[in-house]
Amino acid sequence: MHTFNELKAILDTSLKQAEFPTKPNQLYDPLRYILGIGGKRIRPLLALMSCDLFNGDPKKAIQAARAVEYFHNFSLIHDDIMDQADVRRGQETVHKKWNENVGILSGDALLVKAYQQLDDYPAELFKPLTQLFSMTAIEVCEGQQYDVDFEDLNEVSKEDYIEMIRLKTAVLLGASLKMGALVAKASEKDAELIYKFGIDLGIAFQLQDDYLDSFGDAEHFGKRIGGDILNNKKTILFIEALKRCNSNLREQLLKLYQLKDDSQQKIEDVKSIFEDSGAKTETLSLIEHYTNRAYDSLDQIAVDSQNKQELKSLAFYLMNRSV
Amino acid sequence: MHTFNELKAILDTSLKQAEFPTKPNQLYDPLRYILGIGGKRIRPLLALMSCDLFNGDPKKAIQAARAVEYFHNFSLIHDDIMDQADVRRGQETVHKKWNENVGILSGDALLVKAYQQLDDYPAELFKPLTQLFSMTAIEVCEGQQYDVDFEDLNEVSKEDYIEMIRLKTAVLLGASLKMGALVAKASEKDAELIYKFGIDLGIAFQLQDDYLDSFGDAEHFGKRIGGDILNNKKTILFIEALKRCNSNLREQLLKLYQLKDDSQQKIEDVKSIFEDSGAKTETLSLIEHYTNRAYDSLDQIAVDSQNKQELKSLAFYLMNRSV
Repeated sequence: MHTFNELKAILDTSLKQAEFPTKPNQLYDPLRYILGIGGKRIRPLLALMSCDLFNGDPKKAIQAARAVEYFHNFSLIHDDIMDQADVRRGQETVHKKWNENVGILSGDALLVKAYQQLDDYPAELFKPLTQLFSMTAIEVCEGQQYDVDFEDLNEVSKEDYIEMIRLKTAVLLGASLKMGALVAKASEKDAELIYKFGIDLGIAFQLQDDYLDSFGDAEHFGKRIGGDILNNKKTILFIEALKRCNSNLREQLLKLYQLKDDSQQKIEDVKSIFEDSGAKTETLSLIEHYTNRAYDSLDQIAVDSQNKQELKSLAFYLMNRSV
Repeated sequence: MHTFNELKAILDTSLKQAEFPTKPNQLYDPLRYILGIGGKRIRPLLALMSCDLFNGDPKKAIQAARAVEYFHNFSLIHDDIMDQADVRRGQETVHKKWNENVGILSGDALLVKAYQQLDDYPAELFKPLTQLFSMTAIEVCEGQQYDVDFEDLNEVSKEDYIEMIRLKTAVLLGASLKMGALVAKASEKDAELIYKFGIDLGIAFQLQDDYLDSFGDAEHFGKRIGGDILNNKKTILFIEALKRCNSNLREQLLKLYQLKDDSQQKIEDVKSIFEDSGAKTETLSLIEHYTNRAYDSLDQIAVDSQNKQELKSLAFYLMNRSV
């Protein structure tokens, strides 16, 4: 077993060694750029940690780790075009720094490069890794589409919302972990359990993101509190509030969510409705539900519980940013 | 061995049976749409014909055929966004019928779906097919980027231009054929020869496209003659003319190519320079060179020469549209 910091070091070295051809530079410079501006690298770390958990050599999971990190960055490049976002990780987005066409084409290239990271695995491992990767990729596309669709809907059910975040965010965490397990030749049952751990942790994490955006501590959260409210974003808090409000409060919430208003007052008014309707409490209980389910799956995995400590710590760290 | 028409029937049936999920429909409707509006289906046909050539069951190459056809359509969706093209195959392009975001995301999904077509092959075949597919996909991205880059360059060498069309167009034809060969378990040498046949045929075809755009017969060519000239497109004719002109004619050509002029006179003036400079003759000789090289590779393949007849006929048909 390796410590978190040892795995982080293995990963950082490997990602630094990632090389793209120099030409055509308009295709590959954006890839060097986006992979160079960092990010938390949670997904590739999960791949290494999972391989380590099942007593595999984490170095053997590096190619899988790169595949998921490349895929994640491909999706960021294209999502940022679709969202017309100018800034990512404090830096200009690819399409802003170059242009939209460069973003589209270099994104496409990065998706293919992600697949190619798996090329060195033997055929018997290459196939399940690639199949899992494709299945996950298509689910992420579906999740992104549902997210776009939901913006135009008046009401979204809790189930549909959670399914959207499962597809858009959680499956890639689950796949990262499962790929590490496949490399380590874990049993099918254990590979499925670590996948479920990732799914539930991913859902809990994303719900928590919604929660913290309204009720987090500005200092720890790192973004202005209330950003989602100002953007009229249909988060789990909004969905739960709308379901629970009486018709009077419901009117009020819908009206507030039609405003293009940058005021602190709007934030406070909406937060009050989130609290009074019980949406805040329900959200906390959903986060707890999915976090517990994640830990349950981890507990069921047939390896020494001591080996699970690093993953538990990471999950704890992710889920205790500032709730 | 199957006749061309038998293979075409197998392919048409299989492409009609291609099914995508119904939801989310903004993601999958565009895929049904673009695959439904047809096209010549040359690439998937090549996969089936090559499998048949090597005495494989062409039905076993259907998944590979779908993969290349899906990939081709993915690249059309994204290229049309980049080129701001409104019409494709006489119909609205995807981003025009829906919007650019739909084009980006459904294109991404189609690329992944292309990979997934290979999922049913056994691991030992899945790996070389997928690797070839990825290598080809990245080359097509590179070719597209070079094509964009060349628009901003004053002069492009013949070698660079041919390398661009090799990447942008020819490698996918080569890969389609090679995938059919891999499915049929052809020898490595034969698989390489059929790949080379596709590369050279693809280059010859693309050079011929440049030629016909200026010197074709309007009735057979199906497009207005001179479109490339009016768009100041740097075709092989332009590149060769620029290299061969004296400084006077060179000035004249460069001047004509700066005009935004929709006149028949411009077309005639440029065509005269293409002829007088020897660019027309050189282009015809390049087309012949690559066509002959293609036939040479085909001749070297270790199967009965009678079996090669259908591929030869297809090549003959492609290369004799109206030269």
